[in-house]
Amino acid sequence: MSKSLRGWVKKITVPAASLQNNTADAERLIAALKPALSTGTVSIDISLLRNLPGLLRKQDGEFNCTLCCSQDHWTVLGLSPASDPAPLTGAAIDLGTSRVVLRLVDLISGDVLEESSFDNPQIAIGPDILARIHHTTETGGRAALQALIVGGLNGELARLCQSCGVEPETVLLAAVAGNTAMTHLFMGLDPQWIIREPYIPAVNRPNLVKASDLGLKLNPHARVFMFPNIGSYFGGDLIAGILYAGLHHRDETAIMVDVGTNAEVVLGNRNWLIACAGAAGPALEGGVTKMGMMAGPGVIDQVQRVPGSRELRISTIDDLPPVGICGSGVIDLAAALFMSGMLDIRGKLVPEKCDDRIRYQAELAHFMLVNGENSGTGRDLTISQADLDSLIRSKAAMYTILETISQSVGTALSDLTSFYVAGTFGSFINPRAAISIGMLPDLPLTTYHSLGNSSLGGATHYLNHADCLAEIDHIRDSITYLELNVNQDFMNRFSAAKFLPHTNAGLFPSVAREES
Amino acid sequence: MSKSLRGWVKKITVPAASLQNNTADAERLIAALKPALSTGTVSIDISLLRNLPGLLRKQDGEFNCTLCCSQDHWTVLGLSPASDPAPLTGAAIDLGTSRVVLRLVDLISGDVLEESSFDNPQIAIGPDILARIHHTTETGGRAALQALIVGGLNGELARLCQSCGVEPETVLLAAVAGNTAMTHLFMGLDPQWIIREPYIPAVNRPNLVKASDLGLKLNPHARVFMFPNIGSYFGGDLIAGILYAGLHHRDETAIMVDVGTNAEVVLGNRNWLIACAGAAGPALEGGVTKMGMMAGPGVIDQVQRVPGSRELRISTIDDLPPVGICGSGVIDLAAALFMSGMLDIRGKLVPEKCDDRIRYQAELAHFMLVNGENSGTGRDLTISQADLDSLIRSKAAMYTILETISQSVGTALSDLTSFYVAGTFGSFINPRAAISIGMLPDLPLTTYHSLGNSSLGGATHYLNHADCLAEIDHIRDSITYLELNVNQDFMNRFSAAKFLPHTNAGLFPSVAREES
Repeated sequence: MSKSLRGWVKKITVPAASLQNNTADAERLIAALKPALSTGTVSIDISLLRNLPGLLRKQDGEFNCTLCCSQDHWTVLGLSPASDPAPLTGAAIDLGTSRVVLRLVDLISGDVLEESSFDNPQIAIGPDILARIHHTTETGGRAALQALIVGGLNGELARLCQSCGVEPETVLLAAVAGNTAMTHLFMGLDPQWIIREPYIPAVNRPNLVKASDLGLKLNPHARVFMFPNIGSYFGGDLIAGILYAGLHHRDETAIMVDVGTNAEVVLGNRNWLIACAGAAGPALEGGVTKMGMMAGPGVIDQVQRVPGSRELRISTIDDLPPVGICGSGVIDLAAALFMSGMLDIRGKLVPEKCDDRIRYQAELAHFMLVNGENSGTGRDLTISQADLDSLIRSKAAMYTILETISQSVGTALSDLTSFYVAGTFGSFINPRAAISIGMLPDLPLTTYHSLGNSSLGGATHYLNHADCLAEIDHIRDSITYLELNVNQDFMNRFSAAKFLPHTNAGLFPSVAREES
Repeated sequence: MSKSLRGWVKKITVPAASLQNNTADAERLIAALKPALSTGTVSIDISLLRNLPGLLRKQDGEFNCTLCCSQDHWTVLGLSPASDPAPLTGAAIDLGTSRVVLRLVDLISGDVLEESSFDNPQIAIGPDILARIHHTTETGGRAALQALIVGGLNGELARLCQSCGVEPETVLLAAVAGNTAMTHLFMGLDPQWIIREPYIPAVNRPNLVKASDLGLKLNPHARVFMFPNIGSYFGGDLIAGILYAGLHHRDETAIMVDVGTNAEVVLGNRNWLIACAGAAGPALEGGVTKMGMMAGPGVIDQVQRVPGSRELRISTIDDLPPVGICGSGVIDLAAALFMSGMLDIRGKLVPEKCDDRIRYQAELAHFMLVNGENSGTGRDLTISQADLDSLIRSKAAMYTILETISQSVGTALSDLTSFYVAGTFGSFINPRAAISIGMLPDLPLTTYHSLGNSSLGGATHYLNHADCLAEIDHIRDSITYLELNVNQDFMNRFSAAKFLPHTNAGLFPSVAREES
């Protein structure tokens, strides 16, 4: 089926009225639409209805009709002559806690016109969700937080539209995928019960909202779809990600790992889905993402070992002199250090193997990756034993979560034939390196697939598939949320995973360390 | 069933959240509502949702929840603790072309708190619908007309609320019954195609509209229900009237006549309804309602003949000295003149029977009802032969319409056991007098029932019966609209009805004229 038939814009012919067919304009339009809609009732937005009579009489009866749908009820948002060259667009929005990513989508062709991103302006109030939610309990705090994100979106949407040469009035639909707290802060919902036991969101499945009710400057009839959440700790961003990855379509069991501000894992197939999310208690303090700096110009994103030696080769973003190292670089580095014997199986630097690249500051060992002469900062670029310890905890946490979720349904990690890694992490991580340190299971490299921004992918999918609502509901309703209970069993597994690649080396047959 | 159970306010208990039941607040509320709703989907107005978490935690779980419904989709408009003494109210509105009548209704008890009315401020633009619709084609004309009626309603609603000691914010629902054109002008819809062949409204079945989208100053979440129309000439006021009269419920065939700005007739029973409306072409020029002045203090509303004589006794409103005569008075007067022989069967004044009460002005005969000494104006109160001719045409038109509609379905007027007369006309008309001049058929007087303002009655019914939506749809869908085709057959019947009571006196056996 073509994208346009599956999309929210329907091409229809509305017959002219006559003395024989003197049904009202709205009802003739709805009758013309019915064959294009599978089921459900239809109504027309009041502000569109006001000028419908003139609109219907402007044209030979051929129209592009833009709709939205909620709970099997369709609403007509826009109607324009089929010959009108003005585009009809939608905005896909990944509403991240730190970074917001947008896409402008042509609702007829389904094409992504352009993508852009900006830092979530709520960072000014608090870098994390907790600080922001606490701020909502102050007078005007909730409104201020909403105004920040809405203002940011309006500015970026205006820039995006200008860059694409379209008017913001052409945007009739927005699809927003965000975690539960961000969704609340964006909609202006009271979020304070999200973070208090028993951790209750205001809503699991928000209804469509008028863009104008949120303060978004789009078409005056535009509606905003918010991906539903399962609870306070499993948000619409993940539902969107599963939709995008298509886990719910497949016969085979697959796994998806999304590492953003939090780490989330979903395992399943067309029959069932199981998920866990968030930090797994104090064991994971520091999380799995606090490794190094954000990617940017001059940041080391790849480290490779020259085979048969302890020499390391680095790559930097934009090939600039190195200024730091990001997450994927740290994993590469740890793998290279371990494979060359400079790191032992406990993750400790081995001074006798590091030669002159080891330094001590206040008795803490540092490994010098780039010396000051070659760095972009004029200073040595080093990684400390503490950083490496943190990485070991992170990788152990990740592996333990993967092991726990798969064991909970009696699936062995080795049985997985598809392993999706979403997010920026997924785009840049080198699965070979992650396997070498035992962060990801030892599966054939062809098993690993990078999804990119899966939340944004899901939001884009929504804009191009009017038939995905039932899928979204199905995903939401079929997920079992696994509370990561940090019990003795979990801690035992975690301890075993704190070795490189693992205390049970048999789990990682491909990792044969060359020691020299 | 009690009114409160059938109404729009549902008393519910929302269980508190727990770690075991950690469904979101909105979904717990909806689950608690479901047993109180027969079918359909439910959503919560976004502005209510924003503060739902705090609201739900305020109370012991007992709430009054106010809803609205459209196309089987319920929307939660209000939620207040069951112990909250603030009333929950609705506004029933009869949106007349000339006069607007309102009622404030308690949505829990179903009681009418107070009723008031005001002249439609759109009269300033044009006294009739045609002039107003023409005005909408001028720049800003449509908005100006909408602003006039909305402003009038806001003022009157504020007065009504103040008089009842309630805040306008307590009004959560409004039900509006108006003719098709007034409904368009109130909603701000483009009405110009209503009056041009093939006479097409913008919409037959308006969806619920937010009061704020219309500019109505009620509760910010309030919704407005507009009764649906069948076409340009058969509006929501009549659907409301049928709902109120209950024609669609009965096994027996009944008739309803509503004489407002137009005359409308509906005939039917639970299986079928047939209706006609409006003036029946040039034969009815002058309409059936342009008789005398509006009712008011000192206006003659009853005229009775002293039996056995040609003496007339008048009654005036508030027993004040007479200043004029209204419609019901004119019918009484014509009946009295005819029964006493002062008017012949052609409706012409008989000079020799009128004695000194006949006057001539420019060769036109006038009958003096009250002389200047006894009138409230100091001048003689007279009715001219031209006025009487007009009345004869009106009464002939009314009878011909009644005869035509009943013959169209093979029913004899004499078979009717219920005859409902709605509107001000119905409240004051003396059926005996109307029969005497052959305006209404010669049925037992017990057959006639005055309905009062049936449109307002229907709007009030809506506010107290959440289960009436299917009935309203049923009425709308089961009505056959009879175009009054002014053909030779119609004109023949009309000519026969222009005599007093009729050329076929056998149709009016009860009318035995006493000539003296």
